[in-house]
Amino acid sequence: MNTLELIKAIARSTPTRIVLLVLDGLGGLPDPETGKTELETAKTPNLDALAASGICGLSDPVGPGITLGSAPGHLALFGYDPVSSDIGRGVLEAVGIDFDLQPKDVAARGNFCTVDDAGLITDRRAGRISTEGCAELCRLLDGLTIENVRVLVHPVREHRFIAVFRGRGLSPGVSDSDPQQIGAAPGIIAASSPADERMAGIANQFVAQARAALAAHRPANMVLLRGFSQQPHLPTMAEIYRLKPAAIASYPMYRGLARLVGMDILETGTSIEDEFRTLTGNYGDYDFFFVHIKGTDSAGEDGDFDRKVRTIEQVDSVLPEMTALQPDVIVVTGDHSTPALLKAHSWHPVPLLLYSRWCRTDRVTEFSESACVQGGLGRLPATEIMPLAMANALKLAKFGA
Amino acid sequence: MNTLELIKAIARSTPTRIVLLVLDGLGGLPDPETGKTELETAKTPNLDALAASGICGLSDPVGPGITLGSAPGHLALFGYDPVSSDIGRGVLEAVGIDFDLQPKDVAARGNFCTVDDAGLITDRRAGRISTEGCAELCRLLDGLTIENVRVLVHPVREHRFIAVFRGRGLSPGVSDSDPQQIGAAPGIIAASSPADERMAGIANQFVAQARAALAAHRPANMVLLRGFSQQPHLPTMAEIYRLKPAAIASYPMYRGLARLVGMDILETGTSIEDEFRTLTGNYGDYDFFFVHIKGTDSAGEDGDFDRKVRTIEQVDSVLPEMTALQPDVIVVTGDHSTPALLKAHSWHPVPLLLYSRWCRTDRVTEFSESACVQGGLGRLPATEIMPLAMANALKLAKFGA
Repeated sequence: MNTLELIKAIARSTPTRIVLLVLDGLGGLPDPETGKTELETAKTPNLDALAASGICGLSDPVGPGITLGSAPGHLALFGYDPVSSDIGRGVLEAVGIDFDLQPKDVAARGNFCTVDDAGLITDRRAGRISTEGCAELCRLLDGLTIENVRVLVHPVREHRFIAVFRGRGLSPGVSDSDPQQIGAAPGIIAASSPADERMAGIANQFVAQARAALAAHRPANMVLLRGFSQQPHLPTMAEIYRLKPAAIASYPMYRGLARLVGMDILETGTSIEDEFRTLTGNYGDYDFFFVHIKGTDSAGEDGDFDRKVRTIEQVDSVLPEMTALQPDVIVVTGDHSTPALLKAHSWHPVPLLLYSRWCRTDRVTEFSESACVQGGLGRLPATEIMPLAMANALKLAKFGA
Repeated sequence: MNTLELIKAIARSTPTRIVLLVLDGLGGLPDPETGKTELETAKTPNLDALAASGICGLSDPVGPGITLGSAPGHLALFGYDPVSSDIGRGVLEAVGIDFDLQPKDVAARGNFCTVDDAGLITDRRAGRISTEGCAELCRLLDGLTIENVRVLVHPVREHRFIAVFRGRGLSPGVSDSDPQQIGAAPGIIAASSPADERMAGIANQFVAQARAALAAHRPANMVLLRGFSQQPHLPTMAEIYRLKPAAIASYPMYRGLARLVGMDILETGTSIEDEFRTLTGNYGDYDFFFVHIKGTDSAGEDGDFDRKVRTIEQVDSVLPEMTALQPDVIVVTGDHSTPALLKAHSWHPVPLLLYSRWCRTDRVTEFSESACVQGGLGRLPATEIMPLAMANALKLAKFGA
């Protein structure tokens, strides 16, 4: 019995409420001059007060040294094994544009690209055409029907699009057509087992029709497909935790991930204030809220230390709106670290704060990487956060007599 | 190779001795007024001195957030995976009354109950008849023989009893007859596979005979059975650790659990002093002692903060008797937390103290939840405690060259 099966066996529905506040890419690295990370630099009186009454620690998205993308990072926070529950690239892109993916759809990530007269790739991104240009080209391909399978083609950004195959007898076990190198020809899509041959045939026909339709649209005169995938078979959070969960996220990918695990998606605006207002407005209707803050990660990716500091301070300033609701359990953490100094996701463990009446508070009085090292939660994998939150909400029965 | 298999491969018998002192439900939560837990409130000069010369940490019975019962909690302390080694309800009840269960016996937990003229349950507990009344009714049923299977029926407490089926061809794969609700009829016991059909048939005949025998004994005019189970196939501690282990426990369930893993059970009295005297009296005959203190858990379950404090102080006061024996390794911990504030077992990690000449002491100078956060052992699953104790007793050879 793995942890999720164990949790499923002992979870019970109660009136208590949990708020999981995720500051994407929260963890950082110290500025060489001040010796302080982004979180340590930010003035965060409200988070510090919560840390003082709560219990702190550090969480590893999957394990020491491993850097995760946002999708597995969030799955881990929701309690799912982030490695075995890996989501295919096609599904991830579809989910990232709020596409209404059906359970049997097969989705692929597409690139518009440039091929020369010999059919060899000269630019895998077709000169990074504009998103508008991409949308126009997608309209040429969208709705093609091949052997009773409809192909839905939607733009993502610049040269990126998704191709979603909808119909009977489809399966994701096929290879990419994208060789991921210049000077090669796009590959023939191959079935990895006899059961996948129909899928491979349809995908190859789609590529051929796309090439014909795009012939006059150089530099975007060909497509490359990769990451054919179907929705993962994840048990919902309602099934595992007996929760009624809702997601508040201004970025589509996080809404999509939340939808994959069965959360209701609440309409919200683009600012942090909007998100907290949405939480307050819907507080009576759910017992679990996932609130996602994107700005910390974007600033980290851009290498903008100060903007990451300001985003953290902005979250701190609206925090009292959330604490005023008196959730039984509040968790504040990130899905991974994104130190501005690295301009990228990193493997560093993520500050973690849990507040509840029953948390057994520790001696930590500020929310920061260095203070969390001394925290009572110690260092734990991110997948343990949901069991802890559930326990603190008194939503888990005893295992064994 | 899992940890137990690894340990089994490298364990060796030596003259060194280990004492595992378990204060049941040791971990607590702070009194809101003083900010101190039961253990932090108790005056424990001897435990503190041991903590100062030893190394401390916090252990999770199975994992963060998971609350365990005493049976899996103790199995974890003995080094067994507490989830996969889960013990059936029938066996647990039998073990809990010191019943001498044989390897092929199938044990079920029974309730005397009340059924109306239509055979529907009106009270699952027969008005909670007295333990004496229960013993009398058990005598009516004890020793029935059905198809060469003897049914041994022993009272537990109030309306509770055990039915142990002893004979050839028995198996535990059958359903409960207890529907666990009022207004329903007791269920027919069903086999979960063809191999279990003999067992189901005999159990159903037993229920029918019991009903006939009890007809005139309203309110206890029927029985309900659940949790059919056999002794788990656990390797003994002698097999895994090459230890000669003994258990000192005044409560029968803990003796029973110790017996399941092959410990010798030492006769002892009901007080903490009795138990320590038993340790001293038998110290020459074994190399591993499990000493179980029940009072901490009982006080916690009763919500009696002060009594839990006093019980801890009582253990502290007799501790010098044990340290005077100069065991090579002393471990002091609990099987789980039982905070008086929660009046129940909880998920909170348990203070852990290990003393040996080779422990590499840390800076912790008092035995308490908050001090253990800073301990050199960090936070670890309870199943890791036995390997640590064995290593500190120099009873584990090197793995690999």
